[in-house]
Amino acid sequence: FSSTTPIKATLFPGDGIGPEIAESVKQVFTAADVVIDWDEQFVGTEVDPRTNSFLTWENLQSVLKNKVGLKGPMATPIGKGHRSLNLTLRKELNLYANVRPCYSLPGYKTRYDDVDLITIRENTEGEYSGLEHQVVKGVVESLKIITRKASMRVAEYAFLYAKTHGRKKVSAIHKANIMQKTDGLFLQCCDEVAKKYPEIYYEKVVIDNCCMMLVKNPALFDVLVMPNLYGDIISDLCAGLVGGLGLTPSMNIGEDGIALAEAVHGSAPDIAGKNLANPTALLLSGVMMLRHLKLNKQAEHIHSAIINTIAEGKYRTADLGGTSTTSDFTKAICDHL
Amino acid sequence: FSSTTPIKATLFPGDGIGPEIAESVKQVFTAADVVIDWDEQFVGTEVDPRTNSFLTWENLQSVLKNKVGLKGPMATPIGKGHRSLNLTLRKELNLYANVRPCYSLPGYKTRYDDVDLITIRENTEGEYSGLEHQVVKGVVESLKIITRKASMRVAEYAFLYAKTHGRKKVSAIHKANIMQKTDGLFLQCCDEVAKKYPEIYYEKVVIDNCCMMLVKNPALFDVLVMPNLYGDIISDLCAGLVGGLGLTPSMNIGEDGIALAEAVHGSAPDIAGKNLANPTALLLSGVMMLRHLKLNKQAEHIHSAIINTIAEGKYRTADLGGTSTTSDFTKAICDHL
Ligand SMILES: CC(C)[C@H](C(=O)O)[C@@H](O)C(=O)O
Ligand SMILES: CC(C)[C@H](C(=O)O)[C@@H](O)C(=O)O
Repeated sequence: FSSTTPIKATLFPGDGIGPEIAESVKQVFTAADVVIDWDEQFVGTEVDPRTNSFLTWENLQSVLKNKVGLKGPMATPIGKGHRSLNLTLRKELNLYANVRPCYSLPGYKTRYDDVDLITIRENTEGEYSGLEHQVVKGVVESLKIITRKASMRVAEYAFLYAKTHGRKKVSAIHKANIMQKTDGLFLQCCDEVAKKYPEIYYEKVVIDNCCMMLVKNPALFDVLVMPNLYGDIISDLCAGLVGGLGLTPSMNIGEDGIALAEAVHGSAPDIAGKNLANPTALLLSGVMMLRHLKLNKQAEHIHSAIINTIAEGKYRTADLGGTSTTSDFTKAICDHL
Repeated sequence: FSSTTPIKATLFPGDGIGPEIAESVKQVFTAADVVIDWDEQFVGTEVDPRTNSFLTWENLQSVLKNKVGLKGPMATPIGKGHRSLNLTLRKELNLYANVRPCYSLPGYKTRYDDVDLITIRENTEGEYSGLEHQVVKGVVESLKIITRKASMRVAEYAFLYAKTHGRKKVSAIHKANIMQKTDGLFLQCCDEVAKKYPEIYYEKVVIDNCCMMLVKNPALFDVLVMPNLYGDIISDLCAGLVGGLGLTPSMNIGEDGIALAEAVHGSAPDIAGKNLANPTALLLSGVMMLRHLKLNKQAEHIHSAIINTIAEGKYRTADLGGTSTTSDFTKAICDHL
């Protein structure tokens, strides 16, 4: 790709603060001469019978066709039987791995320095099966489903990621002392894949101990791979170490090279439309998308501008203790480019 | 009770470092003139057919008879089909609530100051049902079971605890946006109980967000109540905030006033028998046991001696960066009494 051949990418601005932070991404990309032909997609206002969701058929086709996209926060309409839009996207597009890097932002102080963690979460099954029922009155059950297929592909993704990103260690997180069969199968798959990567240090860590060690000494970890719910929990914990979901990017990986980068924070309806939102998570997710497109130079250029703007501290949004508007902060980043 | 009428209590010294730290408790209690008639119980070396576990019938009867006990770490013998001894005790004795206070120890610095959290964990069901099977090759499932009965009693325990301990807030931790039926039932029970305690602030927090907020700002929380696995995870996370499981006590609560205080750290076979173990978690669990027995004055006396010894910093075991032996540290506490 050259920056003069526009690349087509799906953009879901999403709800609440979504459109504002998506606008910020467009401006920053333009300022960096990264020409993306954004295929903007809006979620429907009623259920599309072809998807059984507010996500339309066109929404899904757009990602499948462009193979790459960026997604803002989506609020699931409240009411009976509406599946979470975030989850519907992951399932319908078979986005099997969710990659969430969490690293300390230079200049933005938290209790932790030099955090540098990658959580890789199985994204399609486990505790998110949606299979639940009442056995008798007052007794309900949920099914956690673990398959060899989904465990193998996420384990393979994690080790390949570690190798191609110069990472030294993969920790498989589990509770196989209790869920011997499900988490046991997950671990067995990780064990199998680990054998093909003798150069990567491999360990298994029980989730409760993992959480304790993460808050005591996050430097013990590097790449972490795990079933769906543990990934949900641990990726938020890791985000907390460096300042929260407003600062951490993510990308969902599917088959055939499909990748949907995503800001995983909420849609913050209380500040929506007020030019107060922090676009950092979506911007950094955009950077992940560029890296996925192998536009590494442009990705690093934009990444530095974001990091430096935050580090300088002059322009920061309210969530980081500053008084800047979304547009001031965005302009400051553009000025760095 | 007066300190001259010996109270009978079960003591499981447990495995690994268990006997050494149990000895420390006995010495400290004696130095504080707390006379306990310890009914020492040792786990069997083969399966007792009446319990289908290495825990013997006598082990269980001892707790049921004395109604109060203290337990060191137990290592589950490795091999086929051995249930975890810790879990067997909880299930067989119907110890339905697991209370784990996590508070900053004055003088022992971590990244967090003034942590003061109580996690109350449902202790008998949920993800710990043990119900799992292979559906077809490569597809396994685990059942998470939530019952109204177990949810109500742990919710009631949590609110009563909050009230009787002068706590202001109870947070119910869940993932009901995904597990609507199971975690939904748990929340419904918490909602119902909360209505009876209008003076206690009540909120519901999604587990991923809870973990993020706990590492960002633990002062947002007070008492937390949750299903089994979330309790396992969050109590370890909270312990990490104040230094780890070597410093945090716990108590398991059953029907009819039964209470089994427990150090939940491991048996540390690598340092067993070397006079190196830190007895703090078991000592503080012993203090919880004394409070349960309403021996509040004695409990506070011992508690202060432990806290002050750690705060002074002269006698600390290796895990806290010191060079003291278990017996030196124990003696230092006794000298404070
Ligand atoms: C919104 C919610 C359904 C979602 C999840 O549980 O996966 C979110 O927490 C996330 O991590 O993306
Ligand atoms: C040892 C293990 C089975 C146990 C649990 O998972 O409950 C432990 O982590 C605990 O928290 O007491």
